[in-house]
Amino acid sequence: MSFVASLEPEAEPIWEAIHDHPMVRGIGDGSLDEAPFRYWVRQDYVYLIEYNRVFALGAARAPDLERIERFADLLSETVSTEMDLHRSYAAEFGISEAELEETDPSPTTRAYTDFLVRTAATGSFGELVAVLLPCMWGFNETGRRLAEEGVPDHEGYAAWIETYASEEFTELAEWCKELMDEVAAEAGETRRNRYREAFLTSARYEYRFWDAAWHEEEWAI
Amino acid sequence: MSFVASLEPEAEPIWEAIHDHPMVRGIGDGSLDEAPFRYWVRQDYVYLIEYNRVFALGAARAPDLERIERFADLLSETVSTEMDLHRSYAAEFGISEAELEETDPSPTTRAYTDFLVRTAATGSFGELVAVLLPCMWGFNETGRRLAEEGVPDHEGYAAWIETYASEEFTELAEWCKELMDEVAAEAGETRRNRYREAFLTSARYEYRFWDAAWHEEEWAI
Amino acid sequence: MSFVASLEPEAEPIWEAIHDHPMVRGIGDGSLDEAPFRYWVRQDYVYLIEYNRVFALGAARAPDLERIERFADLLSETVSTEMDLHRSYAAEFGISEAELEETDPSPTTRAYTDFLVRTAATGSFGELVAVLLPCMWGFNETGRRLAEEGVPDHEGYAAWIETYASEEFTELAEWCKELMDEVAAEAGETRRNRYREAFLTSARYEYRFWDAAWHEEEWAI
Amino acid sequence: MSFVASLEPEAEPIWEAIHDHPMVRGIGDGSLDEAPFRYWVRQDYVYLIEYNRVFALGAARAPDLERIERFADLLSETVSTEMDLHRSYAAEFGISEAELEETDPSPTTRAYTDFLVRTAATGSFGELVAVLLPCMWGFNETGRRLAEEGVPDHEGYAAWIETYASEEFTELAEWCKELMDEVAAEAGETRRNRYREAFLTSARYEYRFWDAAWHEEEWAI
Repeated sequence: MSFVASLEPEAEPIWEAIHDHPMVRGIGDGSLDEAPFRYWVRQDYVYLIEYNRVFALGAARAPDLERIERFADLLSETVSTEMDLHRSYAAEFGISEAELEETDPSPTTRAYTDFLVRTAATGSFGELVAVLLPCMWGFNETGRRLAEEGVPDHEGYAAWIETYASEEFTELAEWCKELMDEVAAEAGETRRNRYREAFLTSARYEYRFWDAAWHEEEWAI
Repeated sequence: MSFVASLEPEAEPIWEAIHDHPMVRGIGDGSLDEAPFRYWVRQDYVYLIEYNRVFALGAARAPDLERIERFADLLSETVSTEMDLHRSYAAEFGISEAELEETDPSPTTRAYTDFLVRTAATGSFGELVAVLLPCMWGFNETGRRLAEEGVPDHEGYAAWIETYASEEFTELAEWCKELMDEVAAEAGETRRNRYREAFLTSARYEYRFWDAAWHEEEWAI
Repeated sequence: MSFVASLEPEAEPIWEAIHDHPMVRGIGDGSLDEAPFRYWVRQDYVYLIEYNRVFALGAARAPDLERIERFADLLSETVSTEMDLHRSYAAEFGISEAELEETDPSPTTRAYTDFLVRTAATGSFGELVAVLLPCMWGFNETGRRLAEEGVPDHEGYAAWIETYASEEFTELAEWCKELMDEVAAEAGETRRNRYREAFLTSARYEYRFWDAAWHEEEWAI
Repeated sequence: MSFVASLEPEAEPIWEAIHDHPMVRGIGDGSLDEAPFRYWVRQDYVYLIEYNRVFALGAARAPDLERIERFADLLSETVSTEMDLHRSYAAEFGISEAELEETDPSPTTRAYTDFLVRTAATGSFGELVAVLLPCMWGFNETGRRLAEEGVPDHEGYAAWIETYASEEFTELAEWCKELMDEVAAEAGETRRNRYREAFLTSARYEYRFWDAAWHEEEWAI
C-alpha cells in the first residue's frame, strides 16, 4: 500500500467533516450567506501569499533539479496566475484588491501558515511535502464531492466548485500525492510517522480554516 | 525614547488583560482550581521545548560571538535547569514526567510556538528577539504585579509568583529588553515597525496561552 | 550617495581584476582556448542550479508580496529560460545535457554557492540581496566593457559578450542595485557594514570563479 | 554493517592523507614550525565559532527533546569550555585574545564553515549529523595515531595530541558516530547516499583545512 493510501483512513474523517461543515454545505447548495464567504476569500488570499513561501522553500530545499523546477513552476503559477484569478474572483464578491492587501491574518490563518512555513523551513523536505498535501488534496476532494452533488444556483459558488473539481486541480493534487509517495518510499518507519503527523496537523487546519470563516473569527485581544 | 519604551503603550493593555484574566486572578488569590493549572503546566512544558529552539536559532543566527554565547547560555540553562525545575514543579501537582513527555500541543501552544520558530528561522535576527521578548517581559510583569498584591495561601501558586517576580527572572527580562533596544537602535522605521508587529503578535499569544489553559482547549477535530 | 554607489570604490578593483584576467581577456579577443571555457560553462551550470535556490529563498523570505513576486519571476525565468539557454549554449561547445547534469561542483563553485545559500538561508533579507548582487553586477560590467572593446571573431564568445552586455541583462543588474539601495536605505551603519562585507565576499568569489576555470581546478583529494 | 562502518573505506584514505600531511607530521615529531601552526590556531578559532552554529542548528532542528539536550550541551561546552581552552592554548603560542577575535576566515575556513552551516540550515537533520562527523572523527583519528607514535618533544604539540587522543574526545567522536548510525538506520538508500556525500565533502575539507594552514593561505583578491 502506498504511503498516501495509508493516510486515507485518517484523512477521510477530516474530508467528511469538511464536507459536512455548514460553510461547505452552503457552497454546495448555493445557500451560503456571502459574509462568511467574503471572509473566507480574504483569508484565503492571505493564506496564498504564505503558501507561495512554502513552494519557494520547496524549490530552495529540493534535492534535485527536476524538483527545483517543479516547485519553481508551482510558485510562479500561484504567484502570478492563481493570485490574479483570486483577485478577479474576489472582485465578483465586491472585494477590492486594496481590501485583499490590507487583510490581516485571522488567528487560524496565522496558525496554519506559521505551521506550514516553520515546517518547510526547519523540517525535512519530506515534511515540507506532507504539510503541503492537505490543501491540494482536501480542496480537490471537497470540489469533486460537491460537483458530484450538482451545481448550485449561485454563479460564484458554482465557479468555486468547478475550480477545485477541475481536471487541472485534480492533476495538481495527484502530483502532490505522487511526490509524497516518492519521498515516503525512501523513508523508514520513524520518518514516515513524522510525515503522517505533519500531514494530519495540516489536514486539521484545513477544517479549522473553514470553521474560522464560518465564525468570522477575530483576534480577541 | 528607547524602542522598548515605545512598545509600552501597546504592551500595557495586554499585560493588564493577562493580569485580569481569571487564571491569573486565581493564582494571585490562591483560589484557582488545579485542573486548568495542571493543563497550563503541561502545555508550558511543551512550550518550553520549542522555546529552546528559538534560543538555539538565536545562537545559530547571532551576528557576533558575544551573542552566540549569550543565547547558548540561555539554551543551556533552559534545557537543563529550567526544564528540571519544571518537572519538579509539575510533580508537586501530581503530573509525572511521562505525562509531560506525552502532552500534545494544544491548538494555541502549537500556533504560538510555530509562530516563534517560524520567525526565528526565517525572519531577521531583530524579529527573533522581538518575538522572544513578550514571554520574558510578560511573565515578569505578571509575577511582579501579583507579588505586590501579596502571597496567596497556596504553596504552589506562591512559588509560581516568586519564580517570575524573582530578581533572577527580572534580570532575564531586562537583558532581553536591552538586546531588543540594541537591535532596534540600528534599524530604520520600516524594520522597527516589523519588530513592533512581531512583538505584539507574540504578546497576544501570551494572553491566548492563559486563555487556552482556562478553557482547557482541545483540538475539535 | 546611494549605498550601491558607496560600494563602487571597493567593487571597481575587483571588476578590473576580472576584466584583466586571462579568461576574460581571451573571451574579449576571441583567443581563449575552449578547454577552460568548457570548464567554465559546466561549472556555471552547477552554479545556476544553486543560484535558483537563492532566488527561491528570496521569495520565501521577502517581506512583501511585490518582492515575493519579483523573486518568483527571477526564479521561474532562470530555472526555465536561462537554464535552457545555457544548455543550448553548452551544446554549441560540444557539451551534452548529460555532461552538464553530472558535473560536480569544483571547490570554488561549492565554496561560492555554499556561501550564497548559507547567507540567503540564515542571514537577513538585506544580506541575501547583498550576496546576490555581484554576480549580476559583475557579469554586466564585464559584458559591457568587452562589448565596448569590440566583438571577437569567435561566434560563441561574441554571443557570450552580447548576453551579458544586453539591455535585458543590464536591466536585471539595475533592478538588483535598486533593491540593494532600497534595503540599505532603511538600515543603520552596523547593518550596512554587514551588507558591504557580504557583497565584497561575493564579489571576490566572482573573481575566484574565473580563476578556478582558468586553472581547471579540481579537488586534490 | 553499520552506516559508519560503511563509510570507513572512503574515510580511511582521507585520514591517511591527513596523517601524512607535513603539518600533522610536524606536530607528531615536534618539528613543525610555529608560524603555520599559529595560523592553524587562529583559523581553528574562527572555525569553532561557526561550528557552534551547527550545534545550535542541531538543537533547533532535533526531532526530540533528548537530542535537543545533547546538542545544547555540546554547544554550551564548546562555546564556554572549549573556546576558553582554545584561548589559553593560543596564548601559549603568543596569540592574544584580540588577535583571535580579529582573525578573518581564510578561503578554506570560509568554504568549510559555509558548507557546514548551509547544510545544517537547509539539509535534513541526518545531513547535519553527517557534516558534523568528520571534524570529530578525523581529529580523534589523527590524535590517536600520533599518540601511538609517541609524544613529541614540544609541549604545545604534545598537549595538542593529548587533547584529541583523550578518552573524552574519543567519547565525543563515538557519540557522533552512534548518532549517525541511528539516523542512517531509518533512512533508505537515496538518503544514505546523500549522507555519504555530505560526510565525504566535509572530510575532504578536514584535509584542506590542514593544507590551507600549511600554505598560510590568504585571499588573492
